[in-house]
Amino acid sequence: MTDINTDGMVVTENMDLSGSDRPFDLSTYLSQKKELVEAALDAAIAVTYPEKIYESMRYSLMAGGKRLRPILCLATCELLGGTVEMAMPTACALEMIHTMSLIHDDLPAMDNDDYRRGKLTNHKVYGEDIAILAGDGLLSYAFEFVATQTQGVPPERVLQVIGRLGRAVGATGLVGGQVVDLASEGLSDISEETLTFIHTHKTGALLEACVVCGAILAGANETDLERLSRYAKNIGLAFQIVDDILDITVPSSELGKTAGKDLEAQKATYPSLWGLEKSRAKAQQLVEEAKAELQAFGNGGCALAAIADFITYRSH
Amino acid sequence: MTDINTDGMVVTENMDLSGSDRPFDLSTYLSQKKELVEAALDAAIAVTYPEKIYESMRYSLMAGGKRLRPILCLATCELLGGTVEMAMPTACALEMIHTMSLIHDDLPAMDNDDYRRGKLTNHKVYGEDIAILAGDGLLSYAFEFVATQTQGVPPERVLQVIGRLGRAVGATGLVGGQVVDLASEGLSDISEETLTFIHTHKTGALLEACVVCGAILAGANETDLERLSRYAKNIGLAFQIVDDILDITVPSSELGKTAGKDLEAQKATYPSLWGLEKSRAKAQQLVEEAKAELQAFGNGGCALAAIADFITYRSH
Repeated sequence: MTDINTDGMVVTENMDLSGSDRPFDLSTYLSQKKELVEAALDAAIAVTYPEKIYESMRYSLMAGGKRLRPILCLATCELLGGTVEMAMPTACALEMIHTMSLIHDDLPAMDNDDYRRGKLTNHKVYGEDIAILAGDGLLSYAFEFVATQTQGVPPERVLQVIGRLGRAVGATGLVGGQVVDLASEGLSDISEETLTFIHTHKTGALLEACVVCGAILAGANETDLERLSRYAKNIGLAFQIVDDILDITVPSSELGKTAGKDLEAQKATYPSLWGLEKSRAKAQQLVEEAKAELQAFGNGGCALAAIADFITYRSH
Repeated sequence: MTDINTDGMVVTENMDLSGSDRPFDLSTYLSQKKELVEAALDAAIAVTYPEKIYESMRYSLMAGGKRLRPILCLATCELLGGTVEMAMPTACALEMIHTMSLIHDDLPAMDNDDYRRGKLTNHKVYGEDIAILAGDGLLSYAFEFVATQTQGVPPERVLQVIGRLGRAVGATGLVGGQVVDLASEGLSDISEETLTFIHTHKTGALLEACVVCGAILAGANETDLERLSRYAKNIGLAFQIVDDILDITVPSSELGKTAGKDLEAQKATYPSLWGLEKSRAKAQQLVEEAKAELQAFGNGGCALAAIADFITYRSH
C-alpha cells in the first residue's frame, strides 16, 4: 500500500476502502498544512514590551520543525467532519507546549543541549533565566490561547480539550516522562517497562493529545475517540523508537541537533535494548497497528495513515 | 473603621452601610478559609509513580503561607452570590500558579534563593531539574484542574477564567514582570514607571486574577468586574510595597525567607525610591482607594475590606 518514490515522497494509496485511484500526496498535504500552522503561530505572538521575552518565545516557536503535532490535530478534526478553523487554536497550543518542553529539556540542569533544529538552543541565546520564563510563558499562553481563541466549538468541548492538554503536559504526561528519563540516565539496566513509561509519557502523551483533542473538537463519539487514541499511542511509540534510531545513525549536520547525545549520556534507548534491526521492525509493526485503527474511517483516514507511514520512513 | 486589637487581630467594623454591630473577625475568617483551601490542595495532588515529582510539587504547594490568593478568589465569588464550591478549583489553581512562580523564581538562574517560608527552596531539596519540572507540572495542572474540576458553573465562564489565568501568568503578566525585574537588577536609576510595571505584572496581575476570576465564576456584570478589578490592582500594588518594606525591616527569622535580599541584589524597591515613610503612606492610600471600590457592595464587602487592611497592617 505504501511506497517511497524517487523524490523521497511517501505515496500512500487511498487504502483498501477507497473508491478513488488518486494516490494521497502526503508531501503536498504536509507542506500546505505546515504553512497554515506557521502563519497562525506567527500571528499568535506579537513582540511588545518587554521585547526580550516575546523574542525568546518566538525564537524557539518559529524555529521550524515539521509541525507534526499541530498537523495531527488538524487532520483528526477534519477526518471527523470538523474544520481547520475549529482546531487551529488547539493545534497552535500543542506546538507551544511542545516548544516549551524542548526549551526546558535543553537547559543545563536537564539535557544541557547547545543546538536544536540546527540553531543555538534558547538559553544559549537568551540566557537560562529568560529560557525558563519563555517556557513558562509559552505553557500558560497555550491554555489561554485555546480558551480565548477557539471559535465554533461548544464550550464544553473546549474545556475537555484543556483538560486533556493539561494531563498530557503535567506529571501525568510529559513532565512525568522527563522525570523518569532523568532518573534513568547513566543506569545500564533499564527495563523495557521503564523505557516504555518514559516514552509513552515524554513523547506519547502529547502526540496522543494532538489526535484526541482534534477528535474532541469535532465532536467524536466514544468509540472513535478510543480508536484514534490507540492510533496515536502506536505512532507515538513508533515515533520515539525512530528518534532513538536517528540519534545513532544520522550525523549531527543532517539531524539539526547534536547526534550521539543519547549514547554519550548513557541514556537507555530502544536500539540499546533491542538492537537496530528489532527496533526498526517494532516501529514498523506499531505503525501497521496504528493504520489498522483507521480502517473504520474509510478513505478519510488517508492523511493519518500517510503520517503513520511517514514516521517509519524517517528511519530508513 | 479599622483597629488592631491586642491579639494583633484586625477588626474591621461592618463598614458604614452595615446594619449590624457585629465586628467582622478577619482572623477567624482567614483561618477557616485557609483550612478549606489546604484541604482542597492536599486532596488535589496524590503521590504516585514517579513519586519524586509529585513529592516535589507537594513540598512547595503544602509549605504553608497565608493562602491569600485562593482566599481572595473565594471571598469575591461569595460576595457576588456564588459559593465556595464553585470557586475552589480556581482558588487551588491560583495557589498552584503562585507556587510555580516561587519555585522558578528561586532557581539559581533567577533569584538564587536558598530559603522560602522558612524551608529550603524546592531546588535545594530536589535539584534544579526536578524544581523546573515541578513548576511546569503545577502550571499545567492548574489549568487542567480548573477545566476538569469546576462544578455548577456555565462552561463559558470557566473558559473566561482560564483565559484570565493564562494572561495573569504569561508574558503579559507574571512572566513579563519577572523579565523586567531581572533586567533591572543592579541598575541604580530605575524609574517609578519601570518599578510599577514590574510589580503590577509580577505580583499585581495574579492578585487581580484572584478577584476577577472569583467574580466571573459568580456571574458578575461588567460594572462589578471593573470595580473589583480596581480594588485588586490597588491591593496588589500595596501588597508589593509592603513586601519591599518587610524585606528591609524584618529579620530573616521572622520573615521565613532571607531578608535584605533586595538590598543585597541592588534591586529597585519602593523604599529605595521613596524612602520608608512615603512607601508606608502610599500603601495606606492604595488600600483606602481599594476599600472605596467596595462601597457599592454594602455589608458583603466586609471580607475584602478587611483583607485590604490586613495587607497594610503587615507593614507595621
